[in-house]
Amino acid sequence: MEVVVTRDELHKQRHALAVKHHHKEMERPLIGLVPTMGALHRGHRALIERMCAECDVSVVSIFVNPKQFGQGEDLDVYPRTLDSDLSICRAAGAHIVFAPADEEVYPPGYSTTVSVDGMTARWCGQSRPGHFNGVTTVVAKLLGACRPDRVYFGEKDFQQLQVVKRMVRDLDIGIDIVACPTVREEDGLAMSSRNQYLSPSERRIAPRLYAALKRMAACYSGGVQDVESLIVEAKQVLYPSGDDTIKVEYLAIVEPEALTPRERAQHGDRALIAAKLGTTRLIDNIALTGGEVG
Amino acid sequence: MEVVVTRDELHKQRHALAVKHHHKEMERPLIGLVPTMGALHRGHRALIERMCAECDVSVVSIFVNPKQFGQGEDLDVYPRTLDSDLSICRAAGAHIVFAPADEEVYPPGYSTTVSVDGMTARWCGQSRPGHFNGVTTVVAKLLGACRPDRVYFGEKDFQQLQVVKRMVRDLDIGIDIVACPTVREEDGLAMSSRNQYLSPSERRIAPRLYAALKRMAACYSGGVQDVESLIVEAKQVLYPSGDDTIKVEYLAIVEPEALTPRERAQHGDRALIAAKLGTTRLIDNIALTGGEVG
Repeated sequence: MEVVVTRDELHKQRHALAVKHHHKEMERPLIGLVPTMGALHRGHRALIERMCAECDVSVVSIFVNPKQFGQGEDLDVYPRTLDSDLSICRAAGAHIVFAPADEEVYPPGYSTTVSVDGMTARWCGQSRPGHFNGVTTVVAKLLGACRPDRVYFGEKDFQQLQVVKRMVRDLDIGIDIVACPTVREEDGLAMSSRNQYLSPSERRIAPRLYAALKRMAACYSGGVQDVESLIVEAKQVLYPSGDDTIKVEYLAIVEPEALTPRERAQHGDRALIAAKLGTTRLIDNIALTGGEVG
Repeated sequence: MEVVVTRDELHKQRHALAVKHHHKEMERPLIGLVPTMGALHRGHRALIERMCAECDVSVVSIFVNPKQFGQGEDLDVYPRTLDSDLSICRAAGAHIVFAPADEEVYPPGYSTTVSVDGMTARWCGQSRPGHFNGVTTVVAKLLGACRPDRVYFGEKDFQQLQVVKRMVRDLDIGIDIVACPTVREEDGLAMSSRNQYLSPSERRIAPRLYAALKRMAACYSGGVQDVESLIVEAKQVLYPSGDDTIKVEYLAIVEPEALTPRERAQHGDRALIAAKLGTTRLIDNIALTGGEVG
């Protein structure tokens, strides 16, 4: 595995590996990318393993993107665990890790922003103004630097996934965005680099987020389509015996592409939640499938 | 020459031609693009001919981009001359003309903007708010749809050229932007699709713009570096005997990359002018080279 910190090194390594992995029968090798902010956990590992199984050349980027953090957010304390991250990438089979410094990604004079309107004003975009502009800008930039054919994102950040899909479609970028299922702790809590901020008592109740989403999906499967009723069900799980430790920021059922809110749930819709436990903000989501719940 | 109106057809034609023009000794054929808004003149033709001389597959896009016109600007009356445009493309040797409708470029749900800050606030950006966001968005989109290796722009729209270069560099798009000299009428007027808006009397005095720029460049070559003095020289050409038909919007000497204004001119700087003749807005520019004037 090669660890590179500049775009020039990345291009060289990417080219060298592409030549090495070039199959005679193929026009050119398939390049994969998993963009991350490091602090890698089993969720990232699943993305990297899937990329390595599907692609000829597998690239992981590790970059804590300052543009997607707002004022007062956790940029300064966001976990940086490069050694452990590299071990995980190596074990998962990545060929290249691209771990640039801030000034490599945004050199002096950098002036460009890629933004997606509309769907970014809602949900996480409402409490994190500018966040999605930071995400789309850095993803556009990483797509330019890595030139992948396939990019792997977790469904845990569902709005981010849909925003990136929108950008890629709108700008005809011509890469496949591969959405991968959320990886969870045994008690259902969605894997997140921010879970380590939770106190032991917060950690114990954090699985209620997913339990609430599962309750909504189960009720929907059972025939309940009225969103208000589904939210009442979820709240019974979130606030047992009136315990209000979980501060819900939003809880909604949305059309899964533009993320517009529904009043009556439909097959394929998504239930979304964001909540604070103390100072830690967690998000999760689930598909409403009518059939199984997962 | 193939004329295509959808991105799908464009991809198919581009691929078919790339296979046909594939040289054994090359890794892959070189794809060129000249993005235009139609109303093609000899300036465009020079771009297309240069592309055809340098590239294996030559694409011209013709799209009057509504996003780069402001309210009250000339979108509705902008000249549409597709038949003549196609003849020019054919004569110049283009392989593909991509002439999409508005809804092909911006289909329902389209939500993405690419913007360059800072340098777009000045000069044309000041009198045409939103113009450069429209330019960078459509160019990013056309680069996605056409996937060229080289894109040809005229130096006449000098700020546009620098803004596009900035975007391509910032997003690591990895294509060459080729800047081509402004093509002029015999009397020096820069070729522009908007020249046809000029009345006969306006047309007669329009060459003063370039004459004024040439005077500045000649004075700079002669040792004058003070920008205020250079502008006084230019105004003597623009307003002979107090004739104020030409309404100057800006006249400046700028550093040629970020386009920041200078007080003392330096080698390689650019003199920029924008002016209105009646309702027609014209722009032009010249390099300060210290040596020859051209």
